[in-house]
Formats: sequence, structure tokens, C-alpha cells
Amino acid sequence: MSTDPLVIFTPSGKRGRFPVGTPILTAARQLGVDLDSVCGGRGICSKCQITPSYGEFPKHGVTVQADALSEWNAVEERYKSKRGLIDGRRLGCQAQVQGDVVIDVPPESQVHKQVVRKRAEARDITLNPSVHLHYVEVAEPDMHDPSGDLERLREALKAQWGLEGFEVSLPVLSRLQKALRKGEWKATCVIHKAPGSPVRLLDVHPGLYEGPLYGLAVDLGSTTIAAHLCDLATGEVVASSGVMNPQIRFGEDLMSRVSYSMMNAGGDAEMTAAVREGMNQLFADIAAEAGITEAQIVDAVFVCNPVMHHLFLGIDPYELGQAPFALATSEALRLSARDLGLTRLHPEARAYLLPCIAGHVGADAAAVALSEAPDKSEDLVLVVDVGTNAEILLGNREKVLACSSPTGPAFEGAQISSGQRAAPGAIERVQIDPVTKEPRFRVIGSDLWSDEEGFAASIATTGITGICGSGIIEMVAEMRMAGIVDAPGLIGSPEQTGTDRCFLDGRTYSYLVWDGSAEGGPVITVTNRDIREIQMAKAALYSGARLLMDKFGVDSVDRIVLAGAFGAHISPKHAMVLGMIPDCELAKVTSAGNAAGTGARIALLNTEARSEIEETVRRIHKIETAIEPRFQEHFVNASAIPNAVEPFPVLAREVTLPTATFNTGAATESGGGRRRRRRG
Amino acid sequence: MSTDPLVIFTPSGKRGRFPVGTPILTAARQLGVDLDSVCGGRGICSKCQITPSYGEFPKHGVTVQADALSEWNAVEERYKSKRGLIDGRRLGCQAQVQGDVVIDVPPESQVHKQVVRKRAEARDITLNPSVHLHYVEVAEPDMHDPSGDLERLREALKAQWGLEGFEVSLPVLSRLQKALRKGEWKATCVIHKAPGSPVRLLDVHPGLYEGPLYGLAVDLGSTTIAAHLCDLATGEVVASSGVMNPQIRFGEDLMSRVSYSMMNAGGDAEMTAAVREGMNQLFADIAAEAGITEAQIVDAVFVCNPVMHHLFLGIDPYELGQAPFALATSEALRLSARDLGLTRLHPEARAYLLPCIAGHVGADAAAVALSEAPDKSEDLVLVVDVGTNAEILLGNREKVLACSSPTGPAFEGAQISSGQRAAPGAIERVQIDPVTKEPRFRVIGSDLWSDEEGFAASIATTGITGICGSGIIEMVAEMRMAGIVDAPGLIGSPEQTGTDRCFLDGRTYSYLVWDGSAEGGPVITVTNRDIREIQMAKAALYSGARLLMDKFGVDSVDRIVLAGAFGAHISPKHAMVLGMIPDCELAKVTSAGNAAGTGARIALLNTEARSEIEETVRRIHKIETAIEPRFQEHFVNASAIPNAVEPFPVLAREVTLPTATFNTGAATESGGGRRRRRRG
Repeated sequence: MSTDPLVIFTPSGKRGRFPVGTPILTAARQLGVDLDSVCGGRGICSKCQITPSYGEFPKHGVTVQADALSEWNAVEERYKSKRGLIDGRRLGCQAQVQGDVVIDVPPESQVHKQVVRKRAEARDITLNPSVHLHYVEVAEPDMHDPSGDLERLREALKAQWGLEGFEVSLPVLSRLQKALRKGEWKATCVIHKAPGSPVRLLDVHPGLYEGPLYGLAVDLGSTTIAAHLCDLATGEVVASSGVMNPQIRFGEDLMSRVSYSMMNAGGDAEMTAAVREGMNQLFADIAAEAGITEAQIVDAVFVCNPVMHHLFLGIDPYELGQAPFALATSEALRLSARDLGLTRLHPEARAYLLPCIAGHVGADAAAVALSEAPDKSEDLVLVVDVGTNAEILLGNREKVLACSSPTGPAFEGAQISSGQRAAPGAIERVQIDPVTKEPRFRVIGSDLWSDEEGFAASIATTGITGICGSGIIEMVAEMRMAGIVDAPGLIGSPEQTGTDRCFLDGRTYSYLVWDGSAEGGPVITVTNRDIREIQMAKAALYSGARLLMDKFGVDSVDRIVLAGAFGAHISPKHAMVLGMIPDCELAKVTSAGNAAGTGARIALLNTEARSEIEETVRRIHKIETAIEPRFQEHFVNASAIPNAVEPFPVLAREVTLPTATFNTGAATESGGGRRRRRRG
Repeated sequence: MSTDPLVIFTPSGKRGRFPVGTPILTAARQLGVDLDSVCGGRGICSKCQITPSYGEFPKHGVTVQADALSEWNAVEERYKSKRGLIDGRRLGCQAQVQGDVVIDVPPESQVHKQVVRKRAEARDITLNPSVHLHYVEVAEPDMHDPSGDLERLREALKAQWGLEGFEVSLPVLSRLQKALRKGEWKATCVIHKAPGSPVRLLDVHPGLYEGPLYGLAVDLGSTTIAAHLCDLATGEVVASSGVMNPQIRFGEDLMSRVSYSMMNAGGDAEMTAAVREGMNQLFADIAAEAGITEAQIVDAVFVCNPVMHHLFLGIDPYELGQAPFALATSEALRLSARDLGLTRLHPEARAYLLPCIAGHVGADAAAVALSEAPDKSEDLVLVVDVGTNAEILLGNREKVLACSSPTGPAFEGAQISSGQRAAPGAIERVQIDPVTKEPRFRVIGSDLWSDEEGFAASIATTGITGICGSGIIEMVAEMRMAGIVDAPGLIGSPEQTGTDRCFLDGRTYSYLVWDGSAEGGPVITVTNRDIREIQMAKAALYSGARLLMDKFGVDSVDRIVLAGAFGAHISPKHAMVLGMIPDCELAKVTSAGNAAGTGARIALLNTEARSEIEETVRRIHKIETAIEPRFQEHFVNASAIPNAVEPFPVLAREVTLPTATFNTGAATESGGGRRRRRRG
């Protein structure tokens, strides 16, 4: 039996016996304990800090003596005096085993730290970024055995870090000789290593370079481009910023941008240039905001819908504008950021685009799948990313189905008579008294309801300007609950509803929400046409979800996740009254916030998640709503509020909906009569 | 025993039995017979043409009946009527086995054709280029099973050609959708495949595309850039062209260019831009000359010395200007031509740079090693690439040594009083009568000797303008043989030599070659200073060779190869009288012409030769003359003509050299007194 001292690491619990004199870093490496090091054990980077514990450890069956580790040596003393060290900490590369010892590896010394996500139901992110720093000592050139500087650097990286066969670009190669000489043959290599890519040398810094290095998680939307700047060593988001997508000048929604490229020779190239330019501006801004140099940003992950995907890559989106909606490529892309025209990053920065799922279901949906992981869910989860095009995922551990459905821009307040973007002054919450039919509401910018004291003062600067997307959902649902709108979607007359707020407005009735004309403000109403727009949008969304349920062979789902910035503001109850989402216990309807952006951040911080989502996307069953006959049937049924045929029993336990109908036999337009494929 | 018909292929001799109905192309593939096909057996590319033989074949033990192959089918008939077919030829993919048959594969149907080199001693080049065409039929997009066009192309290339996992750039990806639709889901892929590189899709052409495709073998010299345009399917050189290296404006020789970059911030970048610009112009010219489009050029191989190598790559050559002469990299480089700023080729064209051997021994020397293959030589061969810097290789199958030696520009006629470049009017051949000491000579542009009838008329337009490099070698050797110059290198007085052509010229004597002053032409003389320059140049060359012989442990070599354009013009006898090359049978001294250029062509046409030379270069023993004490000793000895200590016994059998010395005791400059390291 070995009499070597026992070394026990916490929190991993890994243990082994090592000869007296073994550095703790060496012991950790041999046991596969996750202990960081940039300098490779030379006592200069301090990444391998550990905390020895002393005393009795009955749990581990050891007693740790005060002299279990070697005494402080000159390297540790120098490090501590120059740069400081938390009490009780040692440098793992310097402290040597003398007797049985228990060693705690603090989180900041772990390479594969856990990055905690705020939502209780979300999995933490295991840190495993694409870019690492490796300090090396390189042999000097020798005329007796001539070899290039690059070849000697290769030998050093192989011997000191086990890294072989990396690629290097000409610009990096051209800086190599100066860097090695400036650092007196000591240098820190910036190494990119991720599954599916060759190892790459992104940069060489003279001497010890400790970063920090950053990556960007970018959500390229048709309206806005949002980016999170993350510290690749801690996973922390250090800055977030967004800009309008400059492509908006070529068309508000996606279809109009596809049309622009069809109608204008070189139109796609113009839009590619515009989005790349916007991105460069955003990156420059975010670096400035975080107080870092652009060259510290070495990796970027992008998620976007298929049209944005193609335009960003410089591919004409023509084919995405017509059946069979063929993507140029659906696979994940590993690129040089330079090849994407991105210049406000490190010149060797890498770019990763998540895979697309299908012609209507883009890398943004893949990112939602990565964030919400329906493929790892025990219960059956429906994930809906609500946007102008809704991406819908349904699945559990067994299988995952995906489709998209063209909801149109109604949920963003567009094509609604008093609709507007979510901005101060917009009505975002609504309640209608079922007896008086009087509305009360809240506007963005004020915490008060419109019938509370001080409301007028609180909105004095913003005014009441319109109804935003989440407001219109609540409005229509409340009108339905109050008996102002019937199940088919008709607004009743004053006689039918018992309120003068309903008034004849052309051939149909409208409902007066707010009359601001006395103060020079708008008159805010909901027209029957508005109801129709919302009916079509919610029917598209519901029928996509229902189609996936058919394909899965179920009539109900266990839980629903609303993704997207907009999804976070939707009231589950109102969405269900509207019949926008399937019947489900309200407590089981949650919001995931910007799940696509979160997916991008996961892929940025954990390269293994990239392979994982690529494999998941390959296994996702893609459903194309356009060729499914039942989609149309579901759509017609779903035009009713909440639905012409589906029972919604769970909702019925919470809400009793009036059954009156207002159709007097006169011809009115029917909600299910039109079907559009809208994108954007 | 199988009763299937026997199919015998010539010239390979491969044979096998195949069921009746097997296409000949299929049989060839199963036997590993080298039979080309672009269209994959669809009867449209005609690359698989074969010639069946009929009758008795006692050697093969078969009798081939007239009906041994299937009758002509509609595909073959259509091909023949539209595009013609040589009598007796069939399409290998259409003709099917019916009985025992002997099939000849003509050279043009072979993928790995032999490209014959003119010199008897040179190995033929086995054609195995980096770029091939593959015709595919791609599945159309299907909304029921959505996948990207690229993914379906991948499936097609895998299923139809066994090609997996190729890379594709964004510009090619952006053209993919149009190409597939234009070709109605039939397309020809331009595939780059070479050892050490991932497989790459360089282009996609709609339908069947048959090329031809071309590659460039480029010899980037400090003075000129020469390129050969080669058909990648036949190996044929279809055009050759050269331009002056535009870097000349920054310095005539290499050291002055290194100095320019040291003295001028950004000077290296200026020179990089200049050489790339010159190369682009050359490529455009050569494409125009050959009547092809620039986009048909898909590969390029470059050879050059280390300073040119670094400047071409965009690396500051600073370190090459001083000990220890460290290269940024010595390994072979596989690049995108675009990354080298080369724009007058296919935008996805690839570039390959041969490895460098050491800081003074560049990719040009590696190319010479590839062309002359000392590592495959049974006898001991000395390969000397004569330039302003001489690269010297010595070896056989057992080992190969390499060094470089700074000969300076004397062999190019520079620093010689009447020296000039090899151009019309330059004296290139010389004989001096040992009795009368009268010279006769020939000048470039005339086939007559100067004492032959009609000589004056034949040079009327050019005149006699100076002495070129090969002329000065013959001149000095002839002066030595005629007793005008003694072994230490002194020109004798009129009294000592017995001719008035020797005259006092300052403190030493000069020899009058030609007095053109009566016709307003130059007076052409050889000064004692000229002799010194030649002594230093030839001593540098010889002592490099002798040092390698020391290291190899030999006192003689079996044969000598003179490489370089200049090497082709050197008279072996005169070079040996001069003591420029070691003693050797004159019949064993041959010229290899531009061996570096040939090496580039080999690497272009045969990608396996690239791995081969990389491995060879790794095994070559590099000798740095600057740190070898014996080099200096050899240099001093070699300053004498032919040599102060080496016996030159073989030469002595052919030539008896006068033994008189002209030193009267007065102080004169000594030939061995200066040592320079010159590059360029």
C-alpha cells in the first residue's frame, strides 16, 4: 500500500496519493480536477489559486496537519507582495504536497465554472469558451539547427500545453517575430479551440498577457440588433447594447426586404452592407461603453431568422421569399469575423452562427431551443417565440417538433388603428369592468392605473399615445370577457353591450378607450378591424402550436414557455382568453425573456453547447405549415375567441366567458376569410 | 470457378472477372485502374474513353470476340455525332462487358498521366493536380423535409463521388442557389483536394462544365518574376511569361531591400504591395496571352528565396538581415490566393509556397531539391543553383546536406568593369590563343565567332557592349589557361605575358579584349579588380560546396548539376578551370536549367510531391556557412585559380595550366582578404 500523502480536492471530491513534493497543480491535472492556469505552473498568472483546509475531516477520513503543504516559497511571496492574495489562499503551482491534505478549488480558479442563470427553471451555463490564453517559453533561434520562429512556437505549445497543429493567419504570422523578441522568448498565445474548427492562433502577446478577453452574443433581429458583451473567463455580461437594424430603411418587415432585393439589382448587397455597418457601430459602442479595446473581443455568436441570416452572410434571400423556401445552407457556420465584414473586433476574431432549422425557422429558433432545451424536458413543453413570425417548438426528451407561423406585425402594435410600439405613453395593461364596461388601464412610464389618484400627473410628460402589443392582447381579451366582443369577434352595438363606449364606426362598431382630444391628445379606440387583425395574428400562432400537437399526437401540453422580449410582457390569462396559446394551467405558463439572446450567450460561453444544438437541430422534426391541410382548418377554428371548437377546460375553471353573439344577420367580414403569409 | 467474362486493362495489366453488363468504367474503378470521369458515368463528359482490342492475345491468354462489348447505345451515338470520337474508341461508362475483352486506357483518359520532362536524367511528373471537376445531380428542395441547398449538395458529392466534409467560402455559398437552379439541379463542382488542406469547394457551375482549369508555377526571383501557366488536366505548359520584380526600385539586391525596410517605416509593406502588384500584372498578362479567363486559374505554386518569401507574405524581413537569420516560418504554406493580395485569378484560387530550408536557403532551393531529387540519387550529386546567392545541395539516397553561399552579383556581370546583363551585344563565349594571347569571342545575338567572316555585319545592330556572366567566367578561365592570369589571380605585365593586350592600368595590369572606340563603341577590358571579384564569387561558391563535402565525409562527388537560368550557360570546363565547382568528370557536369521553376511546376501538377518535398526538407541537414570555421579556410584556398590546395586531378588530365606567377614582390590586394555576406 502506498504511503504517499493523500490529496483530496473539493468540491469535486476527487482524490489520489502523490509523492511528497508534488505541486498541487500537478496533482489536480493528474486527477482531472478543474484547476485553471495560464502560465503553465510558473507562478506568475495566479489563476491556480487554491485554499487548503486544516484539521479533522471525518467525512474524508483524514487529518490535515499545519505542515501538510510546503512553506511559502519566494515565488509565492513575491506574487503576494506585488499583487496580493486572499488570506488562506496559496498558488497551486507552488504549494507542494507534504502530508494528507484537503484542497478547495474556489469557483474563480475553475476553468469550467458554472454561470448561474436567474430563472429558477433554467439550467446553469458551464463555462467552456472558445478562446484561452497560454503562456509559453519559446526556444531561441539557433544557427546550428535552423528552424522558423513559428516552428519553435509550435514545439513550445505542444510541449508545454499539449497543443498541436494550430492554424495561423498571415497577419498574425507577420507579428510573431517582433512579439517573441519583445517578450524575450516568452509569450502568451491567444488560442481558439472549439469543436468543428481547427485550433487557431489568434494572437501572440509578448510576455505574460492576462486579458481579459471578451465575446459577443448577438441577436440580429429584423428591427433591432442587440448584443451582450461577455467576459470569457467569468461568463459575466459586462455590457449590453442595441441599435436599430439599419435595413429598416429598405423595408419594415422581412417580406418587404426580400421584395426590395427582388426589385433592385444589388439590393441584397446594399442590405448586407447596411446590417454589417450597423453591427460594426454597435460593437464599437459596446466596447466603448465597457471601457475595453475592440481588440479584446475575440469571439462572437449570432442568432437571427433565416432572412437576416442570409442577408448578414451576403446571400440573396430570394429563395426564402417563395416556396419551397430553400435555405442556401442550414448548417452552423464557423467563420472569420473579417469574412463577415466585421471590423470593430479583434482582427482575427471568430464568428459562429447557430444552425437554421428550416426556411422559416431560423438560427434564432435554434437558440431558443438551446436556451429552453425542450429536448431535455421531462414534461411536454410548448415554446413560443412571439414575434412578427412566431417560432414554435413542442417536445420533450423523446422528440421535438418545430414550425413557424406568420403572425404578422399586429402584436407589435402595427396595423392596429391606435397601435404603437412599446414606448412611454402606450397602454400596456387593461381591465374592463364587466358590469359598467368602463376600462381602466396603465401606460408605460407610470405605475398607476388610470382610475388611481395622481394618474394624470404621472403621465403628464408622456401623455396617452396609443396601445402597445401586450396592451392590445389584454384589451381584446378584456372586451371579450366583458361582453363587448363576441366569440366570432364582432363588437356589439351600444344596445347589445349596454355602453355608449361602443359606437357605429362605418359599417361596424368601435369601442372608445380614451378620449384625449380635450387635451389635444388622440382618441384611442378599438375598431372591429383591429379585432380582425388580432384574430388573424393569434389564430396563426395557435394553429401552428395546434398543428405540432396533432403531429405529436396530443391534445394538451404540460407547460408553455413564452419567449421573446414581447413574450415577457404578455399576460398568460389574457393570451389564453384570446385563444392565442393552448389551454394550460396558468401557473404553468412562464416567460423566458429573450431566449434567443440567451441561447446565443450559451453558445458563446460553452463551445460544447454548439455541437449539442447542432445535433439537436438535426433531430428536430420540421413541420412546414404551408403544406399542412390541417393548419388551415385550425386557423379557421382559432379565429374565434378563444376558439370555435377547442374546449379550453382549464381556462373555463378560471374565467366564464359571455356567450352572446352580436351578428344580426347582416353581412360582415369574417375573421377567417383571409390567410396571409407574412414575414417580418 | 467464375464464368464471368475476363476484363484485362492495358497498360496497367490489371484484370478481373465481371458479370455480363458491367460498364467498363465500373470495372476499372473496382480494379483501381486509372480511368478519368468528370460526369460520374453519365455519358456526357467523354473523359473515360477507352479502346477495346479484338482478336487473339496469347500473352493475356484470351481471345476477344467482335461482340465482347455491348453494341453502341444511344448515349454513345449522340456523343459521337455531336462531339466526335476517335475511330475505335468507346465511352467507358456506356460500353458494357459481354465477353472476355482487352481494354486499352489511352494516356488522355488517365487521371494520373505522366508528364514527360525533356532532360533524359529527369523523372517524369505524375499528374495529380489539386483541383478536379465533379459533375453531380442534386436533390431538389422538399418542404416535407427541409434542408439547405448546401446540405443537399454535400449529400450528392458524398453519394456520387465519395467526397465528404468540404469547406466552402461565403462568396461561393452566395452563388450556390442560382447555379443549382440554372443547371436544373445538375452542377459541376470545382473541388480542391491536396494533402494538408481540408477539401474545398472552389466553385459551382450550372450543368456540365469541362474547364479547362489552369495553375501557375511561379518563380519569384529578386530580379524577375517568371510564371508558367499549366493545364491541370494535361500538365502541358500553355504559356510562360515574366516581369521584372517591381521591388527593384527599392534596391537591386536582397540586402539593400532588407535595408530599405529597416530604414523606412512601412518599407516592408511597400515592397509587399509592389511584388503583389507585379504578380497580378503578370497573371493578367499570361491569361490574356493564353486566351483564357483569369477565373480559370485555380491554383498557384510559388518558389522564392527567404527574403522574397517574407516580403511576398507580408512579413518584415528584418530578422533575415542579421544573425541568426531566423525565418518567421520555414514550413510550407497553404493559403487562399486572396490572402496574398492576388486578384487576377479565380477568387477562390489556392496558393502553395514550398517550405524554406533555412534562413539563407529558401523555397527556391527546396524546389531545386524537388526537381533534381538528390535524395533519390544513387550516386553522390552536387546541385548548385548559381545566383547572387548560391544554394548548394549535396547528397544521395542516404542523406542530403544544404547550405547557401553569398557569391554576390559578379556572375550577373555586376561589379565587373565591362560587365553587363546577358543581353544582345554581350560577350558570352571566349577563347584565348595560348600562343598569341589573342582573344576570339561570340556575342549574344550572333552565331559567329569574332574572327569569322561576316561577324562585323552580324553584330551591326547590337554592337559589342560588354561581358555577361557566363562570358566573364570563360574569359577569366581562358586568361588563366593562356598564362595571362596566374594562379593567385594577378594579370601579368606585357613582358610577363608577351602581349601588349596586357597594359598597366593604375597599380595593376588589365587585359584588352576589344577596342570599339573607333566605331564609338566601348573599350572592353578585364581589370585585375574584375579578376578579384570573380575570385571572391567563385571562392564563395566552391567553399560552400567543399564544406558540404567535408560534412558528408567525401573528397569528390560523382556528378554535378548546375541549376538556375545562368547555370545553363556556364561551360563546365571553364567553371572547373576557375575552381568554381569541385573537380569532376566533365561529362558528369550537366545543366538543369531553371530547376526551381521546374520544382514549382512539379508541386503544381502533383500534390503528393508537396508532401514529399516537405518531408525531404525536414530531413535535409542544414549547414550555416557563417558559423563554420572551415568555410573561411576553404574560401581562402579557393581564391586561387583553380585552388591553392585542392589537386583537381580530373581537370589536370584535360587541361594543363601554366605555373608561372606574376607577383614581383610588390604589395597588391589579396583575393582572399575580404569576406562579404551578400544577398541578392
